[in-house]
Amino acid sequence: MVLSNRKIVNDPVYGFITIDHPLIFKIISHPYYQRLRRIHQMALAQMVYPGAVHTRFLHSLGAYHLMCNALQEIKGKGVPITDEEELASKIAILLHDIGHGPYSHALEHSLVDVGHEEISQLLMQALNKEFEGELDLAIEIFNGRYHKNFLHQLVSSQLDVDRMDYLNRDSFFTGVSEGVIGYDRILKMLTVRNGELMVEEKGIYSVEKFIVARRLMYWQVYLHKAVLSAENMLVKILSRAKKLAMEGADLFASPALHHFLYKKIDKQSFIEQQDCLSQFCLLDDYDIMGAIKAWTIHSDPVLSLLCNWLINRKLFKVQLSSQPIDPALIAGIKEQASAKFGLTGEDLDYLVFSDETSVRAYNVNDEKINILFKNGIVKDISSIDDALVTHTLAIPIKKFYICHPKI
Amino acid sequence: MVLSNRKIVNDPVYGFITIDHPLIFKIISHPYYQRLRRIHQMALAQMVYPGAVHTRFLHSLGAYHLMCNALQEIKGKGVPITDEEELASKIAILLHDIGHGPYSHALEHSLVDVGHEEISQLLMQALNKEFEGELDLAIEIFNGRYHKNFLHQLVSSQLDVDRMDYLNRDSFFTGVSEGVIGYDRILKMLTVRNGELMVEEKGIYSVEKFIVARRLMYWQVYLHKAVLSAENMLVKILSRAKKLAMEGADLFASPALHHFLYKKIDKQSFIEQQDCLSQFCLLDDYDIMGAIKAWTIHSDPVLSLLCNWLINRKLFKVQLSSQPIDPALIAGIKEQASAKFGLTGEDLDYLVFSDETSVRAYNVNDEKINILFKNGIVKDISSIDDALVTHTLAIPIKKFYICHPKI
Amino acid sequence: MVLSNRKIVNDPVYGFITIDHPLIFKIISHPYYQRLRRIHQMALAQMVYPGAVHTRFLHSLGAYHLMCNALQEIKGKGVPITDEEELASKIAILLHDIGHGPYSHALEHSLVDVGHEEISQLLMQALNKEFEGELDLAIEIFNGRYHKNFLHQLVSSQLDVDRMDYLNRDSFFTGVSEGVIGYDRILKMLTVRNGELMVEEKGIYSVEKFIVARRLMYWQVYLHKAVLSAENMLVKILSRAKKLAMEGADLFASPALHHFLYKKIDKQSFIEQQDCLSQFCLLDDYDIMGAIKAWTIHSDPVLSLLCNWLINRKLFKVQLSSQPIDPALIAGIKEQASAKFGLTGEDLDYLVFSDETSVRAYNVNDEKINILFKNGIVKDISSIDDALVTHTLAIPIKKFYICHPKI
Amino acid sequence: MVLSNRKIVNDPVYGFITIDHPLIFKIISHPYYQRLRRIHQMALAQMVYPGAVHTRFLHSLGAYHLMCNALQEIKGKGVPITDEEELASKIAILLHDIGHGPYSHALEHSLVDVGHEEISQLLMQALNKEFEGELDLAIEIFNGRYHKNFLHQLVSSQLDVDRMDYLNRDSFFTGVSEGVIGYDRILKMLTVRNGELMVEEKGIYSVEKFIVARRLMYWQVYLHKAVLSAENMLVKILSRAKKLAMEGADLFASPALHHFLYKKIDKQSFIEQQDCLSQFCLLDDYDIMGAIKAWTIHSDPVLSLLCNWLINRKLFKVQLSSQPIDPALIAGIKEQASAKFGLTGEDLDYLVFSDETSVRAYNVNDEKINILFKNGIVKDISSIDDALVTHTLAIPIKKFYICHPKI
Repeated sequence: MVLSNRKIVNDPVYGFITIDHPLIFKIISHPYYQRLRRIHQMALAQMVYPGAVHTRFLHSLGAYHLMCNALQEIKGKGVPITDEEELASKIAILLHDIGHGPYSHALEHSLVDVGHEEISQLLMQALNKEFEGELDLAIEIFNGRYHKNFLHQLVSSQLDVDRMDYLNRDSFFTGVSEGVIGYDRILKMLTVRNGELMVEEKGIYSVEKFIVARRLMYWQVYLHKAVLSAENMLVKILSRAKKLAMEGADLFASPALHHFLYKKIDKQSFIEQQDCLSQFCLLDDYDIMGAIKAWTIHSDPVLSLLCNWLINRKLFKVQLSSQPIDPALIAGIKEQASAKFGLTGEDLDYLVFSDETSVRAYNVNDEKINILFKNGIVKDISSIDDALVTHTLAIPIKKFYICHPKI
Repeated sequence: MVLSNRKIVNDPVYGFITIDHPLIFKIISHPYYQRLRRIHQMALAQMVYPGAVHTRFLHSLGAYHLMCNALQEIKGKGVPITDEEELASKIAILLHDIGHGPYSHALEHSLVDVGHEEISQLLMQALNKEFEGELDLAIEIFNGRYHKNFLHQLVSSQLDVDRMDYLNRDSFFTGVSEGVIGYDRILKMLTVRNGELMVEEKGIYSVEKFIVARRLMYWQVYLHKAVLSAENMLVKILSRAKKLAMEGADLFASPALHHFLYKKIDKQSFIEQQDCLSQFCLLDDYDIMGAIKAWTIHSDPVLSLLCNWLINRKLFKVQLSSQPIDPALIAGIKEQASAKFGLTGEDLDYLVFSDETSVRAYNVNDEKINILFKNGIVKDISSIDDALVTHTLAIPIKKFYICHPKI
Repeated sequence: MVLSNRKIVNDPVYGFITIDHPLIFKIISHPYYQRLRRIHQMALAQMVYPGAVHTRFLHSLGAYHLMCNALQEIKGKGVPITDEEELASKIAILLHDIGHGPYSHALEHSLVDVGHEEISQLLMQALNKEFEGELDLAIEIFNGRYHKNFLHQLVSSQLDVDRMDYLNRDSFFTGVSEGVIGYDRILKMLTVRNGELMVEEKGIYSVEKFIVARRLMYWQVYLHKAVLSAENMLVKILSRAKKLAMEGADLFASPALHHFLYKKIDKQSFIEQQDCLSQFCLLDDYDIMGAIKAWTIHSDPVLSLLCNWLINRKLFKVQLSSQPIDPALIAGIKEQASAKFGLTGEDLDYLVFSDETSVRAYNVNDEKINILFKNGIVKDISSIDDALVTHTLAIPIKKFYICHPKI
Repeated sequence: MVLSNRKIVNDPVYGFITIDHPLIFKIISHPYYQRLRRIHQMALAQMVYPGAVHTRFLHSLGAYHLMCNALQEIKGKGVPITDEEELASKIAILLHDIGHGPYSHALEHSLVDVGHEEISQLLMQALNKEFEGELDLAIEIFNGRYHKNFLHQLVSSQLDVDRMDYLNRDSFFTGVSEGVIGYDRILKMLTVRNGELMVEEKGIYSVEKFIVARRLMYWQVYLHKAVLSAENMLVKILSRAKKLAMEGADLFASPALHHFLYKKIDKQSFIEQQDCLSQFCLLDDYDIMGAIKAWTIHSDPVLSLLCNWLINRKLFKVQLSSQPIDPALIAGIKEQASAKFGLTGEDLDYLVFSDETSVRAYNVNDEKINILFKNGIVKDISSIDDALVTHTLAIPIKKFYICHPKI
């Protein structure tokens, strides 16, 4: 009497996640999807928040779970959604991160000159071909080309189930309880009008809290100084390794990593060379971190220094500023670093450098968060009376920083 | 080998609360303190949030627990605090709500023309007399007359342990998870400079989140329309009952409630009449709600109508507005109510009426929340760079409303 | 587009409880049901666990919520359940505690010689009459007279949603985290075979844990010495008050309490006297505790002593024993108590007395918990291989105790 | 005013972990300790419980945190503990898992013929030498050679902080809420008598619950069929790789893994060859999983088959039995596997094999859990009245199983 296709996955965040359609199960079982088990959701944030070692696999499942709940709520309010649309929306969210490589952000700025969004598109097409078109509608929804726009908004907007899951999940695993959002209340407040996703009036405060929680997570976690430091260190390591490889140096690397170290790779490569995508799908955190461990004893002093620091958590010092970093400050530190580590010129740029980062809590130009009032009026969350999310939060905050080793 | 004076109290919010000083234990055991077991922390919010039935007794213990933690953190940072000061600070917070009567807010606007702060002062003095001066220092700290101002600020300021506990606790018992604050992180970030309470720089986002959570709890819980409705209904019931009693009507009442129904009571009464304070200490939610249940069959139609509605949760309809309520609207509804319930004139004012309420998320003129930056600079939370808590949150938001029965 | 009949209730335990049928809403709105808001689920356990002030109202809603989930799971496994059966099962659990009076256990042993189960039956019939037969099927299921026995077992058996909710909820509100059960896993493991409720094989350990959690909650919470003490004190107070009332003494009492104090009441009274049931429905914790507060100054020394002790938490000392209490011990303590309080004879029996209590973690003769193995075999949880719940847990454990004031 | 040596680590399980001694900080910063960041606490349990990706690093910190709390409780009860003893006990627990390699259990049964306990001893000595004897007392306590035996019992016994943390933490990260233990209550109940660790009488039920939770975690998580399957697959992979390496085959491997693949390693090697321990300290999950990924395309069909299965989660089927597996059954399955995979003889033993496992919930012969009754009597938890943990739980339960690929 038990349906054999019904699988239950334990999730510390939501309790249980139910998988009850064979196509969903087939996607999750696919090697392209299973590889997400080996990619950390929060990259190197674990250097600061040691509990934050959860994977993109679980995040994707979590977002899928929220999608199931959101669809059920919306259907319960009388909005027509067909079984096909429901399944496709679930698949769209399940696949939303499929193109992520290991330490995506760092990787895209060093080894591979392609964004994960573009790779996602390629991978979805590859899977769709393998599954003989079963993903057609999911891809339409994902790309915002389906007429019921609210399905796309659930997958990708400023109040999508992706954000809801990652804020909630990252908050859970880091232990930063202030990031917790009332995702269940927000889901209960979702509704649809004229095909667009809306939040009922009484959900205003939950949405505001969601936006504030996101802002907090950015500054306290994602852009925490030591996280910024570790991720910049990783970028420098991979850039150096690629440079050395392109110059013909010998570097320990897994077969997949070897592929991306010793060739120039950009979007065109993925389109033209068949093995590029398949090699990419073999790449995960184990290739990267395994190589970095081996490189700690490489003969190139810049590479081995950086690798040793990262592995043993001797992170760069980071100074943040609301103004661009004074070149004189950089020059001064470089001088000291040069004396201490015996490096000069371009080599020194791997150890001492400045950069900038910015966060915008809410973007009034992007997919807005619309509030549906009882009287039928619709307003953007930033333009309601007594809005919390106003000028302040809608302006991107830019921060400049300098990284350098302890001197 | 177990210290007999050590008591452990289970608390669903913090796990365990430890009481390890005989004077603390003596205070908690006192009938004045035990009566707080019979006073709901959130008055009639339980009409909307049925889990919110926790008592002032547990809130006071919770605030005491946070005070213990806060003092330990601050001492751990090298700030000198003597044993006497520590004990006195704990007592000060333990007693901060001692003057609350049943449904305080409603009571103070109907039966008793005295604020709970004034009664607290009287009760602390009475207890201090009974305890032969053992509360001297606690009372000094409570009243902000002790030279180490940070101890007072822990008891009473915009970031005191009272607020931390009630936000946290009310959020826990209502199930409104968005109200949860990172109290443990805020406590870890507390420090002292020049005798004033400060928050370390890296606690900024937690403090912002605390202020936003408070704002949310006000609009979503404390001033929820149905809560507002129930509490206004209670004010009207008690006002009506007092009016009838003063006119000589016969009303079911416990001995303590009888005392306050049949006499005009103001601050002077508490000072001049000895039994006033002792009778007040016998009054709790059981007297009020017990009487209201009995009054459901009272011969006065206004009283019995209101009591029936409250007991059986037929609450007033409430309409909120950012503008004062149009008198024509009130008149129109009164007319309908008059036709339906057969009441006129002053009697009708108990059924249809308007009022206003206001919330200010952060008050720049009150005990500020100061941030201590690493470079030694101190700034108010509302004047830091990229502040979330700025103009918007520091302006009181006023809302007007009208209450009336279903017509 | 929002269904107007859909109500959401915040619950700190489960997050949100959804009510989506007008009949469910009609029942919850009924005064008979609303009165459960004024009856504490755990009676006087709050004397020891101050957070345990939740109401029977919320417990009933919680059990209803679990029933909704259980039915959805079971249906999801292909077991046919009609809409009518689903609604009726939800109503059956919603009403399972409708007959509880204030401090039921104490009340039934003093004021009212009727069990709450019998009153429940009477109240269900009364409601069914008022609702013109709409509760027929619910009552059939409740009473185990419907052919699909698993629906009854969900309402009432050793693994029913009532137990699941109260263990979970009482654990939550007391803060005794060890009582927490994996209710969501148990629900996922429920299945049906031959019309009987079963647990799938892989749910064995969750069920064992459920039974052990229940055992722990009994000894650590429900039968905690101070809880036992407070509840025995309440029994003695109500017995004394009834005795005095029947002898013609004047006692402060609400109209409803007056009804039950001044008349002999048994099951027959409820059947024959129309006002008996209606008066019972006006009785709640406020009547009882309100009276006890007033009785603290009653002229009867036994009554006023006991009431003062209970109100100010000067509880009886309790000694537990696995053997019956030695009469000599009782006699000795009585002598001391007599000297201290100036009471003799029968009066002394209110202050010093012995009694017994017993707990059986699992009853092999009652509605068993059946495990369905993958190979189709069905076994009682106490007879599986390597069972934890075996002889030990299936034997009732009897404990004897003596209560007496501090001497 | 902030002590610069004070570090706070966010932990999702306990909130915050405080490190306030420079020696503790020095140990945690050591590469030997930092490597625990790269070793999963629960090995391959993440194949079933995708949230269970937490590291030994965080577990060790968590156990350290519980030790801090336990010592504070015990000192608070008047048991004398010097500052040196306190620091040493904290270090002892911090280092208790230092000898764990990647996937320890599997590793010890394939690559390295040494237990992690022995490596722990060697590593503690190495660290102690580097720290010039600062760990002397910690090592004494760890090894049970210090006269205050309760300190050792906190580090290692049937109720030590190691077990408390891992049960709690594994339960948290797997989402198996039934494994949650009332660690805070148990800590509050700890006491010392005659130098031995005891639990106060009123902690009995919490201890019973702890033992039952452990039993549940074993059967439901640690020995879950799919976990057993994955870990056996890993053992077979590493055994096969070692065999191939010793025969001279070429295998992708990091330098550290190369060391252990191409040499016979036993305890003697660690003692005699200096680089053995240092190479071991470079080994972590990244070396193992990185190699397995590369081996998926190895020319040896047994190795590449197994590696592909593990990486893509095509796990062995597992059948459990309370009886030894019938050789005829094994032979039959081997025959099918031989036909399907074209393997014979010894090669087939890597694909089809049987083994056994056993769990004992409580061991009456090991470091017992002693209950201290109020009357001064001490009893083992398994010999108290009405014990839950009796014959049943003290007997080891042995289970036999067969593993084989899907046929």
